[in-house]
Amino acid sequence: MMYPSELESLIGNISPVPVELRYKAYERLDSLTKPRSSLGFLEEIAARYVAITREERPRIKGKRICVFVGDHMVVDEGVSAYPQEVTFLMVKNFLRGGAAINVLARRAGADIEVIDVGMFEDTDALAGVVKAKVKHGADNIARGPAMSVEEAVSAIMVGVERARIAWEQGVCLIGTGDMGIGNTTPSSAIYSAILGIPPVLVVGPGTGLDADGIKRKLNVVKKALEVNKARMNTPLEILAAVGGLEIAGICGLCLGASAKKMAVVVDGFISGAGALVAMRLCPAVRDYLFFAHRSSEPGHNLFFQKEGIQPLLDLNLRLGEGTGSAIAMQIIEDAVAIYNEMATFEEAGINPGA
Amino acid sequence: MMYPSELESLIGNISPVPVELRYKAYERLDSLTKPRSSLGFLEEIAARYVAITREERPRIKGKRICVFVGDHMVVDEGVSAYPQEVTFLMVKNFLRGGAAINVLARRAGADIEVIDVGMFEDTDALAGVVKAKVKHGADNIARGPAMSVEEAVSAIMVGVERARIAWEQGVCLIGTGDMGIGNTTPSSAIYSAILGIPPVLVVGPGTGLDADGIKRKLNVVKKALEVNKARMNTPLEILAAVGGLEIAGICGLCLGASAKKMAVVVDGFISGAGALVAMRLCPAVRDYLFFAHRSSEPGHNLFFQKEGIQPLLDLNLRLGEGTGSAIAMQIIEDAVAIYNEMATFEEAGINPGA
Repeated sequence: MMYPSELESLIGNISPVPVELRYKAYERLDSLTKPRSSLGFLEEIAARYVAITREERPRIKGKRICVFVGDHMVVDEGVSAYPQEVTFLMVKNFLRGGAAINVLARRAGADIEVIDVGMFEDTDALAGVVKAKVKHGADNIARGPAMSVEEAVSAIMVGVERARIAWEQGVCLIGTGDMGIGNTTPSSAIYSAILGIPPVLVVGPGTGLDADGIKRKLNVVKKALEVNKARMNTPLEILAAVGGLEIAGICGLCLGASAKKMAVVVDGFISGAGALVAMRLCPAVRDYLFFAHRSSEPGHNLFFQKEGIQPLLDLNLRLGEGTGSAIAMQIIEDAVAIYNEMATFEEAGINPGA
Repeated sequence: MMYPSELESLIGNISPVPVELRYKAYERLDSLTKPRSSLGFLEEIAARYVAITREERPRIKGKRICVFVGDHMVVDEGVSAYPQEVTFLMVKNFLRGGAAINVLARRAGADIEVIDVGMFEDTDALAGVVKAKVKHGADNIARGPAMSVEEAVSAIMVGVERARIAWEQGVCLIGTGDMGIGNTTPSSAIYSAILGIPPVLVVGPGTGLDADGIKRKLNVVKKALEVNKARMNTPLEILAAVGGLEIAGICGLCLGASAKKMAVVVDGFISGAGALVAMRLCPAVRDYLFFAHRSSEPGHNLFFQKEGIQPLLDLNLRLGEGTGSAIAMQIIEDAVAIYNEMATFEEAGINPGA
C-alpha cells in the first residue's frame, strides 16, 4: 500500500513489542508470592505493559484520556436518538467537569484532553478545548465520502501529535475517548467494511434507538457502503469514506502512542473502530493496545471475536467519552503494581513449590 | 429450619434491600448527562449500593478487606500443590505487606484485617493478626466432619463480629478474603452439596494441581460427601461437615454486614462458598453482596449460572486472599461516584431527548 509520506514515516517508527521482554516479565511474575499464573489476565496485562515500555520496572505516572470530538452530517438521516447540537453541549459539560468521563477520569487519576478535531460548531470561544479542527463535521456518508483522504490523514496526525505531546509531558498510559452524536453509524460502517461482516450483524441501538431507528440506521450504513464502494480500497480510504474525524484522531493516537512505546487504553465501540484502522495501517500497533471493555453494541463483540482480542471489562457500557478507558486504567495500574510491589518467594522465605 | 439462637436473632436482623430505593436511585441515574442506562452494569451497581445503605447520597468512605484464615487437615490426602505450612508463611507475608492482597488493597484504598479463625499453628506471637481461633484447622473431611455444628456457628459469629466492628469504625464497603492451603477442596464440596452439582463438574486445579492431582482431589470430594452424608441436612450442617473455618467466617461476614446494611464484596471461589451458605441461611443476604469476579475454578461459573448472578469482573483470577474484592471495590466506587458527581441534564442545559 502507498500512504502519504507523513504516515509512512510514522509507521516506520513503530516497532513490534518484543516478545522476549514479555517472557522476561513473566520470570519476575513467577517469582512472586502467589501460585504461578494465579492472577490470570492481570499477569498478562503486567507482562505486556512491561514489554511495551522496554523498562525493567516501569511505574505508571502520568495518565491521560484524549477525548476526540467530531460531528457527523449523517445525523440528517435520523440515525441518532440525539440531535447534533448535543455534541457541543456535551463538550461544554466536559469543560465544566460534569460528564461521566470527568468523574471516572478523576477516580482513575487521569487528566482529560478534549480535542475538537471535527466539530460542526466553532470552538474558538471555548477555553480548554484543544483546537485542531480539520473540518466542520464529517459529510453525510449516505451521500458520499465523510472526508477526503487528505483530511483523514490530517485528522490522524492530530491524534499522533496529541500522543507525542502527552509523551513529552510524562504520560505513561494514554486512553482514547470520543464524542460525536451519530458516530456509531460510521463506526459500524468501518467494522463492516474492514472485517467483512454484514451490516445487519454490526448495527445496534447506539445511544438508544428503537427498532425502527435501528432499521433506518442499518439502511444508512448499507447505503454508505454502497455509495462509497469505489473509493474504499484501503483501510485509509475506508476511514475517509465512511469514518469520522474523531475516529481518525483516535486512530492517530494509537499510531502515535505506539511510535513512542506508550501503552494505549482503547475505550469502546467508536474507539475500537479507530484502533482497528490503526491496526490495519500497522499491525505492530496491536500489542500496544489494551481494549478496555466489551460494549453492548453488537458489532463490538464480533470485532473481538474476529481479532481474537480479550477486553479487560464486560460491563455493558455504551457511553463512549473514554469512560471504559478510565475504568480499565485502574486495572492496568493494579497489574503493574502487582508486578512492582509484591514480595518474591525468596523474600518471604517460602518454597515456591509446584 | 431450627438454628442456634445467636444465628436466629442475627438472621432476624437482616431485612431485604428495598426494591423501591433501587428504582428511586435509577431516577437520579436517568437524570444524569448520559443516554439512559448507557453505563450498564455500573448503573445497576450504583442503584443497588444506594438501596443497600438506605441513604439518598451515600459516599464510600472506609473500605476494608477481611482475610479469614484457616487450615484444612484434608491436605493430608494430597489435594493441594502447596504444603499446609504455607498458610502460616503467607499470613506472615500479609503482615509484612508483601502479598498480592496488600498491593491491591493499597491500590483500592482499603485496609486489611487478617483473622485467624482456624489456623493450625498458634498465632499468639504474630502481632497484627486478629486472634479468633475456633479450632486448630478443620478436620480431614475425607474421614469425617470438618468441625462440629457448634464450631461452625462460632466461626460464623467471628465473621459477624468483624462486620460489626468494621461498621462501628465507619467502613462502608467490606470485602471478603481467604487464606487456607487446601481450601478449594471443602469449597468444591459445599458448592456440590448445596447446588446439587456433581463433584466432577465443580472440582478444578485450585492453586495448580496437574491432571492426576485433580483426579485425587475429585475422589476426596466424593469421599467427603459420602462419609458426611448423614450429617448434611441443612446448609449449616453442610458447612460444618465439609467446609472450613475461614469459609464459615466469610459466611458470617456476609450475614453480619447485611444486618448492618453494609455492602459486601465477595471475592472468588472460596468466598463464594461462604456467601452461598449465607444466602441459604438468609435469602435476603443476596442483595447485599457484590460478587467480585468469575474465578477460573470451573465450579464458580456453575454457581453463577445456577444462581443467576453476574460477577463484576472476569479476569481469570484464582488466587483468593481478597484480591478480586480489592479490584472490584474500585468499580463499585466508580459506580457510586457516577451517581453522586455527574451533572444532570438540567444542570448542563441539555434536553434529555430519547
